[in-house]
Amino acid sequence: MSLKGKVAFFVTTNFHKFSEARHVLAEHGVATAMLRIEAIEIQDDNLEGIAKASVRDAVEKSGLPVLVEDAGLFIDALKGFPGPYSSYVYRTLGTRGVLKLMEGTDKRNAYFYSVIAFHSPERVSPKCFHGKVEGRITLNEQGNQGFGYDPIFEPRGGAGITFAEMTTAMKNRLSHRAQALRKFAVWYRST
Amino acid sequence: MSLKGKVAFFVTTNFHKFSEARHVLAEHGVATAMLRIEAIEIQDDNLEGIAKASVRDAVEKSGLPVLVEDAGLFIDALKGFPGPYSSYVYRTLGTRGVLKLMEGTDKRNAYFYSVIAFHSPERVSPKCFHGKVEGRITLNEQGNQGFGYDPIFEPRGGAGITFAEMTTAMKNRLSHRAQALRKFAVWYRST
Repeated sequence: MSLKGKVAFFVTTNFHKFSEARHVLAEHGVATAMLRIEAIEIQDDNLEGIAKASVRDAVEKSGLPVLVEDAGLFIDALKGFPGPYSSYVYRTLGTRGVLKLMEGTDKRNAYFYSVIAFHSPERVSPKCFHGKVEGRITLNEQGNQGFGYDPIFEPRGGAGITFAEMTTAMKNRLSHRAQALRKFAVWYRST
Repeated sequence: MSLKGKVAFFVTTNFHKFSEARHVLAEHGVATAMLRIEAIEIQDDNLEGIAKASVRDAVEKSGLPVLVEDAGLFIDALKGFPGPYSSYVYRTLGTRGVLKLMEGTDKRNAYFYSVIAFHSPERVSPKCFHGKVEGRITLNEQGNQGFGYDPIFEPRGGAGITFAEMTTAMKNRLSHRAQALRKFAVWYRST
């Protein structure tokens, strides 16, 4: 393993997401830069398929070693909805719409899933890393940290509070994204 | 305009959609074959962008003159949801989920929008045709004809019944898809 710092370019337009990623990767000696380019996003019920297509496109456009993350909230009672379309659903229905869909439902289990895809001009194909956190959908919004569905997601093992009630450091101990990023960082430092 | 029949390959895995298209195109002297290939579908809030990317991919894979349709139901009170993701939302939430989201809402206007993209190996870029039908979301499901959101969509000018209460011939007089297909057929016969 090299002790010299390595750099990876994280393709996103979401500063919250980038900020979480930078913290986790810094702890593992990987420096991160935010790369604001428009990478293609395909429709696929499988997050890995979406992330791989995006990261290939991002490498083609930038010529850099890049990371792409695709993540989603999968709610059991809604057959996995909003899943791969979590971002669009957040922009239209918001957390309130999701809470409305869950009205009268006792089955509140859900999970966040994250796929980190890494690719570079030297590689033949992208490499993927996965993270998952189980939890439940709360009855109301709680907290104002984080972003997206954080105020309505209470992770298992999180002392009964939502992601939006945690600091970034607390969230990163549990989150799907941090898990996937740590796996990436360990691998990247070893290459 | 040529009087000889022309053929177009309609890329879809949805037999209902193909059947509607075949009726409309036949009336305009265009014969249609159903082409079951997997064309890429991108995530985009704009249906035309999705249809163009798909039809380019379909021509690359098949080497044939092909049609792709992308359509969506856009509900005003839900900021356009389910829009470009209507098919995924139908498979997960279904019409009942959409009705639940609309509970307590008086603002029930919505529209169906269709984009038909045509492309062939000889063309430089795809050509698009559009159709739109305004209407409202009903309070309950009505009828069992058609497919998708037809049981909860009452088109304007349709005598107060839903698409699912109409025969294919009646639906084709009003529908977004039929409008776009007719525009395509007129153009295609003239080329």
